[in-house]
Amino acid sequence: MKQYSQMNIAELSAIKNELEINFNRHKEKGKKLNMTRGVPSDEQLSLCNEMLTCLSVNDYKALNGTDCRNYGGIDGIPEIKKIFADLLDLTPDEVIVGGNSSLALMFDNVAVNMSHGVRDGQPWQTQGQVKFLCPSPGYDRHFTICNYFHIDMIPVAIGNDGPDMNTVEKLVSEDPMIKGIWCVPKFSNPTGIVYSDETVKRFAKLKPAANDFRIYWDNAYAFHDLENTNASIPNIIRLCEESGNPNMVYQFASFSKVSFAGASVSCLASSKSNCEHIRKRLTAQTIGPDKLNQLRHARFFKDASGVMIHMGKHAKILRPKFKLVSDVLRSELGSLGIAQWSEPAGGYFVSFDSLDGCAKRIADLCAQAGVALTPAGATFPNGNDPNDRNIRIAPTCPPLDDLKEALEIFCAAVKLASVEKFLARMQ
Amino acid sequence: MKQYSQMNIAELSAIKNELEINFNRHKEKGKKLNMTRGVPSDEQLSLCNEMLTCLSVNDYKALNGTDCRNYGGIDGIPEIKKIFADLLDLTPDEVIVGGNSSLALMFDNVAVNMSHGVRDGQPWQTQGQVKFLCPSPGYDRHFTICNYFHIDMIPVAIGNDGPDMNTVEKLVSEDPMIKGIWCVPKFSNPTGIVYSDETVKRFAKLKPAANDFRIYWDNAYAFHDLENTNASIPNIIRLCEESGNPNMVYQFASFSKVSFAGASVSCLASSKSNCEHIRKRLTAQTIGPDKLNQLRHARFFKDASGVMIHMGKHAKILRPKFKLVSDVLRSELGSLGIAQWSEPAGGYFVSFDSLDGCAKRIADLCAQAGVALTPAGATFPNGNDPNDRNIRIAPTCPPLDDLKEALEIFCAAVKLASVEKFLARMQ
Repeated sequence: MKQYSQMNIAELSAIKNELEINFNRHKEKGKKLNMTRGVPSDEQLSLCNEMLTCLSVNDYKALNGTDCRNYGGIDGIPEIKKIFADLLDLTPDEVIVGGNSSLALMFDNVAVNMSHGVRDGQPWQTQGQVKFLCPSPGYDRHFTICNYFHIDMIPVAIGNDGPDMNTVEKLVSEDPMIKGIWCVPKFSNPTGIVYSDETVKRFAKLKPAANDFRIYWDNAYAFHDLENTNASIPNIIRLCEESGNPNMVYQFASFSKVSFAGASVSCLASSKSNCEHIRKRLTAQTIGPDKLNQLRHARFFKDASGVMIHMGKHAKILRPKFKLVSDVLRSELGSLGIAQWSEPAGGYFVSFDSLDGCAKRIADLCAQAGVALTPAGATFPNGNDPNDRNIRIAPTCPPLDDLKEALEIFCAAVKLASVEKFLARMQ
Repeated sequence: MKQYSQMNIAELSAIKNELEINFNRHKEKGKKLNMTRGVPSDEQLSLCNEMLTCLSVNDYKALNGTDCRNYGGIDGIPEIKKIFADLLDLTPDEVIVGGNSSLALMFDNVAVNMSHGVRDGQPWQTQGQVKFLCPSPGYDRHFTICNYFHIDMIPVAIGNDGPDMNTVEKLVSEDPMIKGIWCVPKFSNPTGIVYSDETVKRFAKLKPAANDFRIYWDNAYAFHDLENTNASIPNIIRLCEESGNPNMVYQFASFSKVSFAGASVSCLASSKSNCEHIRKRLTAQTIGPDKLNQLRHARFFKDASGVMIHMGKHAKILRPKFKLVSDVLRSELGSLGIAQWSEPAGGYFVSFDSLDGCAKRIADLCAQAGVALTPAGATFPNGNDPNDRNIRIAPTCPPLDDLKEALEIFCAAVKLASVEKFLARMQ
């Protein structure tokens, strides 16, 4: 088929009419389909249902004798610390296991560094206007945390190897008010790329102008490969250690997309010394995490390899969904020259770039036809996609049939918005 | 027996010798007994063991259809909100149910008011030196939160009816930098008193100089009566509403000493409008509480009356322990004129006042004989008991036999420290 860019006004107008008729048919169906968030499906959650009953009325003690029903313990029971440590290739004293939300761990660590400083140094908030580097497109909830704390966000381009490291190195070394950077190093949200070894090494060797600069390494999809290839990234904590920056990185991981999204366990990993600092603060802040839920996870998965076997089951469910996205986008849009998209090997998203200036219109059209997407722009700081082109597709939750229908509506919206754009340019 | 105060040096010296011999015997036994914290006993925790298995592999949906395994929902599933609302005589929209730690809810609300202000007003931390009133003796972990945020703590005396309200009213109305007060209105930690109706009414009618003053109403022992009398206190949230101060109070409650101390659910109750503000912030902060654990609690207790019936079982276990404390203290110390203590009708503590200047010595002697007490002074801001006399006894955790032994050692320490004090005064 001819690309839209090669058509004249008459051809485009004819196609527009056709597309509008087609789109109105979609609207009339009055569907309600949701692709807004990276949410596991019922089928995935059910992989873990045995965890609901895996403790017995006599099974509540951790390896070290701790009664998980009672108070006590601030950073996780030994068995769950070991599982995270093994998965991340760290030692248990480099790991703090928390409650059900790694987002809460991130929020908390930004909050504390703002108000009390990094390792009890000068609070960020008393030093001037705090800034974070935000590789974009990125994860909207990272940006929401920055917004909440009035942190200026500086977008940095992200490519196939990770963030543009020349820019990162330059900015970080020049500006002492740049205090952090958000990274999703494996199956980046939303672009799905995996940071290259070289990128990770350059992160570890950063020479920040601020000695209280921190890398927020949100390894949210650390075990979330779609294929059995298991993309591996270098161990940022070890590399930072070797580069003489042992305390520069906080790594986050979680079982939200391993066990139950709303009732899992989260993990903060960092240097032993950082963990000691954080533990001290936690004793003022909380009675400690829910140890029974940690024990449930330990009983169910047994060990790190149990987690990896389980992730294979997730992959089996997710592969057809990601394949469907790829198939539909290719067959509907592949020849039209109006879009690009990612074909990730893991994670939860497909990142879609329309023609410049079309993303909001596409999301709006989709909403009209009952397909909810992550708001256009959400993948950029302050919701501001300068090219208005990036859309995050979250294909994991809907059943295949619904997903197919949602994708067809999406593609119809993309085509319509693109034709409108070409026509507007011509007139 | 003669009171120590009426003895001469020779009599006291003779008694001191006897006491030292007796005390050394205790030391030689090398016991390890812990009365430091208000921790439920194994027997109490076991009352809830069925909660470990009360969900089935098909039982994970809340009343409103929410899949509790998945993401979604920020302030609690309907059934658990209703239980807390019924227990506290509020409506569900005045209640936010969180994770396993009400301490975390308190810390969080102080943190946010410091950094972002009350209801998005001017942050406390930008207004000058923030101060909190601290009825003392009080709960050490409240004071730890203030310490963490560099909040000045002003001790206020607490009597049988609650804090000295003349002082509270005067200070709060005069000083706009007084931003909060910590209250444990029912079975106060550690004194065990219940605020009188009049005290609660005066709290609701406070006329603070600061319009962002807040009462932190930690109703930690709301359902924790030892007898069936069920001491009731007026509804502070309704009273504040009636007094035209609808947003002045945050109430906290939890099931830490109802179900599993380390794996329960916590609750923040406040005006509907305050709850709306807090919900908005929570969406930036967390993916939401563990809804499966909330569902477990709802399934196990069924409703508010189920909670109250369960609390009767706790009371049955705790009554003999509190009676033992009372009996041993009376028989060992009752006639000596060297101590006073509380006889609470609920809660988790007995508050003990030695002769002035003896508390640290008593705790030190106890430690030598293997009995760990809450550090002397801990019940006052900055660990500074101006009279060095208050000791918090936590009798709930040890089995009766251990408790008896610990109390005997404690009384021996009290006697020895008191004799030493009298002798020191005479010499």
